[in-house]
Amino acid sequence: MAERRATILVRGTGLLGTSIGLGLRAAGHQVWLSDPSPTAQRIAEDVGAGTLLSSADEPDLVVVASPPEVTAQEVAQALQTHPRSVVMDIASVKAAVLQDLLHWAKDDDHPLTYEDLRRYVGTHPMAGREKSGPVAARGELFTSMPWVICPAVNPHTEEQISDPDAVDSVTALARRLGASAHQMSAVKHDESVALISHLPQIAASLVASRLQEAAPGALALSGNGLRDVTRIAASDPNLWVQILSANAHHVVEILYGVRDDVERLISTLEDPAAPGGQADIAQLIAEGNAGVARVPGKHGAPPQSFAQLTVIVDDRPGQIAAVLNDVADVGVNVEDLHMAHSAGHQVGMVELSVLPARRNELADALTTMGWKVVLS
Amino acid sequence: MAERRATILVRGTGLLGTSIGLGLRAAGHQVWLSDPSPTAQRIAEDVGAGTLLSSADEPDLVVVASPPEVTAQEVAQALQTHPRSVVMDIASVKAAVLQDLLHWAKDDDHPLTYEDLRRYVGTHPMAGREKSGPVAARGELFTSMPWVICPAVNPHTEEQISDPDAVDSVTALARRLGASAHQMSAVKHDESVALISHLPQIAASLVASRLQEAAPGALALSGNGLRDVTRIAASDPNLWVQILSANAHHVVEILYGVRDDVERLISTLEDPAAPGGQADIAQLIAEGNAGVARVPGKHGAPPQSFAQLTVIVDDRPGQIAAVLNDVADVGVNVEDLHMAHSAGHQVGMVELSVLPARRNELADALTTMGWKVVLS
Repeated sequence: MAERRATILVRGTGLLGTSIGLGLRAAGHQVWLSDPSPTAQRIAEDVGAGTLLSSADEPDLVVVASPPEVTAQEVAQALQTHPRSVVMDIASVKAAVLQDLLHWAKDDDHPLTYEDLRRYVGTHPMAGREKSGPVAARGELFTSMPWVICPAVNPHTEEQISDPDAVDSVTALARRLGASAHQMSAVKHDESVALISHLPQIAASLVASRLQEAAPGALALSGNGLRDVTRIAASDPNLWVQILSANAHHVVEILYGVRDDVERLISTLEDPAAPGGQADIAQLIAEGNAGVARVPGKHGAPPQSFAQLTVIVDDRPGQIAAVLNDVADVGVNVEDLHMAHSAGHQVGMVELSVLPARRNELADALTTMGWKVVLS
Repeated sequence: MAERRATILVRGTGLLGTSIGLGLRAAGHQVWLSDPSPTAQRIAEDVGAGTLLSSADEPDLVVVASPPEVTAQEVAQALQTHPRSVVMDIASVKAAVLQDLLHWAKDDDHPLTYEDLRRYVGTHPMAGREKSGPVAARGELFTSMPWVICPAVNPHTEEQISDPDAVDSVTALARRLGASAHQMSAVKHDESVALISHLPQIAASLVASRLQEAAPGALALSGNGLRDVTRIAASDPNLWVQILSANAHHVVEILYGVRDDVERLISTLEDPAAPGGQADIAQLIAEGNAGVARVPGKHGAPPQSFAQLTVIVDDRPGQIAAVLNDVADVGVNVEDLHMAHSAGHQVGMVELSVLPARRNELADALTTMGWKVVLS
């Protein structure tokens, strides 16, 4: 398969499938679409993600973007329907899909062969939105995001099944969409996402679900802490049922640890004056300090490698632009930007992250320009 | 007490006490400082938060900004040392402080009298940082943040003990520092913060503490979801021991609910194919949807009342400024701004929140100006 202008069939035109179609068409690829729902397929065509596949068309690459629970089945079907195409899927959990495919390939009664699997590569783009469906799709969804590539591997011999050319094609597609490719095994992937994606989703939902009972007066005191912790709680229940079910083994292992921590915290707080109780609480918070210090920042930079400064601005059109203009005049790049604000006020604080070596220079320059600057 | 130019003594020059001193001096108040640690006191003086209290000085208002565990004691002492001053505290938990003070006022062997308590008002500024100590202080820390005012109340008669003038003085101070005052009972406050502040802190720490065990390859896949959920996990263990211990009763009630949810999720994930299991997971996520929809947005606006659009920019100096400049030219106010980026890339996405009625107009205008705009 030529890496340029490869022809692509996207099977499944939900948020991710439609976004892939949009992104690839923008990059000059021929994209065909198919979806079991005629409505979803029509919307995806209407937004420009691709055109209907005709029987004469033979794609170089098939992207299976079906719901996780039917992904393995769709991959098997695609491998048989398109015997010369590379087939990739994008389901959020990878080992279960591969396991089903290997099982069918061994089964003499199933039409799928082991040879077919050489054309299969599992993948998972680490991108998504709190909204779903083809209307929410955008071709830029994968820009700057990690895209995990899991070549199929024989679990007994540990020999790679996926053809290296197929892996290259799939990797090229991820990069064409602006993502950064990370190759790893399906098991390693599932273990990783249980921790860095599924656990945060569960924690956000657990906290947010408690808010159902809150008095409105309590919610009026909400700060950025609560907003940050609960943002991803606005996710699709149906999708998450499938993700958590498919990765149940790894998720539940982590939840055992969480349960132990919650239990320990409950016993401590039931009698906070008991010996050792306060040390237990301090340990939990200190362990959180140690864990969060390991989360990488922007562009994979080491955590906390940027310095912050805060500019106080009026909350009216053009103020943030005016600040950033002046920052640009000084020639300093803004690595991250965070707005802090709260109920009932018309003043905002803009926290800028910059390279530590440039911070004081920038603060001095902005102060001279008349801005109210606070070093963070 | 005159509301203008009131003289203030800040007892305790940590992050919050020093920030209060800085803010009040900037607003033209005379501020004196005292701290049991000579080092902390000297740093607070050096950064300009106030001057040493001499024996001749008599403050109109004493702000007790000590650690939570010694707050009641410090308030009692301040009420006796400064018999004409209003005394307020700023501890994060309010009922326990009032309970101690009422207990001492009833005790004939304790010098504190019920009459003294007329000059006391409990408060809690809903502001803080992941850093601590006087060096991290800034006078603008309270800008736009809620500041809860809890007048002392007799728990039996429900009669207010705090003098209305004292409540007015304290409210004026909170507003002078840019905060919005919310008056409520100590019990209502403690119940509220258990949910909207202490629970998110615990959840962030629980998730972050699991990351200690993560392989570096897993952390390289981290996205904004993980970063948002764990941000506040970088908090001071010693402070949180005191906060959680003092509000143990309300926090543990909430944790019982969390434990039940975790238990239910664990049993479901131990056997995800069992009848009803998938419905359990869907319910947890759906309850999270309902809860997060209640969190108010900026300026106390109803949740989700803004429309989003995303602009794709190069990651170099001046790009965000250039976008916001053009937004300002169109005359649309940016209500919130979020940067999305990830490891290994030099392209960023700037998500702007604006009034829904202005979104399409802004998107069209920016597109005409040559920006790559995606409606969200």
